[in-house]
Amino acid sequence: MKLTQDAQTYEMPHLLAYYECDETGHPSMSMMLSMISMVSDEHSMSLGMGTNEVQQTGGTWVVSGYEGQLNKKQPLFGETIILGTRAVAYNRFFAVREFWIMDQNHKVEYAHFKSMFVFMNLKTRRMESIPPVLIKPFNSPMEKRIPRLKRPHKLAETSAVVEQNYRVRYFDLDANHHVNNARYFDWLLDPLGREFLRKHQIQSFSLQYLQEVRDGEIINSRVNQLKAEETTSYHQIVVGNQVDAIAEINWYKNNG
Amino acid sequence: MKLTQDAQTYEMPHLLAYYECDETGHPSMSMMLSMISMVSDEHSMSLGMGTNEVQQTGGTWVVSGYEGQLNKKQPLFGETIILGTRAVAYNRFFAVREFWIMDQNHKVEYAHFKSMFVFMNLKTRRMESIPPVLIKPFNSPMEKRIPRLKRPHKLAETSAVVEQNYRVRYFDLDANHHVNNARYFDWLLDPLGREFLRKHQIQSFSLQYLQEVRDGEIINSRVNQLKAEETTSYHQIVVGNQVDAIAEINWYKNNG
Repeated sequence: MKLTQDAQTYEMPHLLAYYECDETGHPSMSMMLSMISMVSDEHSMSLGMGTNEVQQTGGTWVVSGYEGQLNKKQPLFGETIILGTRAVAYNRFFAVREFWIMDQNHKVEYAHFKSMFVFMNLKTRRMESIPPVLIKPFNSPMEKRIPRLKRPHKLAETSAVVEQNYRVRYFDLDANHHVNNARYFDWLLDPLGREFLRKHQIQSFSLQYLQEVRDGEIINSRVNQLKAEETTSYHQIVVGNQVDAIAEINWYKNNG
Repeated sequence: MKLTQDAQTYEMPHLLAYYECDETGHPSMSMMLSMISMVSDEHSMSLGMGTNEVQQTGGTWVVSGYEGQLNKKQPLFGETIILGTRAVAYNRFFAVREFWIMDQNHKVEYAHFKSMFVFMNLKTRRMESIPPVLIKPFNSPMEKRIPRLKRPHKLAETSAVVEQNYRVRYFDLDANHHVNNARYFDWLLDPLGREFLRKHQIQSFSLQYLQEVRDGEIINSRVNQLKAEETTSYHQIVVGNQVDAIAEINWYKNNG
């Protein structure tokens, strides 16, 4: 297996586990986001920019959103895949990363993602400019105008919705003591129900995080009721009156 | 890294991912059960006894329970660990497997588990005798009396309990179209709450599955209220009036 590992780009192999896949035998969206988050961590650590080094600056990286395109062909559990990432560009406040999940011969790209990172001061919990010492090692171009992520369209207020409530559980927290970003996708998709999820696959999506969800909170996940020929869903995650995340998903139909 | 792979024993390396760990940075119990289930699958596949071969007999393996002992020292995310399994013994109806999770030098055993498997006819959903063709390749001794697992003590009916309800979600299902066994541990532990879970670690446990939990069901997870000096918890997972699983857990206190 040929893997690229330089300052800007990092690839690693990954044995896709049974428990990373859902009923279809393919990786669930939340597991894919977890996996790309792992390759991003490995990339940072390979450049000596692990969590400890980052937190010494008094801040932490925060993902503000993702967008992604998925191939209709998806990997199966038991398959060794390649996880890849590249530090695309940055400016004073934003850093863009891209990710790919490929077969082990680099022939099939199963999924391609982009994410936007900002830097948060751990004391004030506010965004601040990215410390140059943290970004330089990635050899990523500094650009005045960096590509923005596609913004999800809002769920129309007049839409008929399906919704479900979820209590944030202890095991939704990760070693960062915050709700893991990737978990949002389980909440986003579950209300669509088994019947729909077996017969559809995600083709593309955009997801924007607005406010942090906390341990013990009850979140409400709502999505427009899809009519037979509709292939785009609009999602909100709400706590009380506050919208914590929005997403837009385009779906393939399959014959499952 | 030296790994044993023969008919009876199978070891594999595993990079412990961030998303397999909870707030403590150590693997969650449900992820440990998922990992040992993976090494058991890899073992079976290495002997040509994958899911397809098994299902051709019209049946499937079902885990009826686990017991385990955990070291106070646990691996951290980012660490490469060894997952191991051995087909211990079997008789006409039961097969016992053991599992270990060790550091990559085989010096520290982080966890040791035993599980009991039975064989279920997929049509009748009843237990039946294990097809010899499925067990022979493991070179495991046929024994009249095989070691039984420790049975969890029941939660006393007079105990004051803490409890929580959980709806079974789409992503609790695995490619087998059933609720993944390992998920039960998230339900078992979550009612204990963050304060308790940060300050305690599992020392040993036994878990018995009695009835299958199904998609969409609301399960009730209850556990005795632990007084300051108590270190054993008794758990039930109940749907309606039916007890679907019971567990007993002994806890280390830590200073977390």
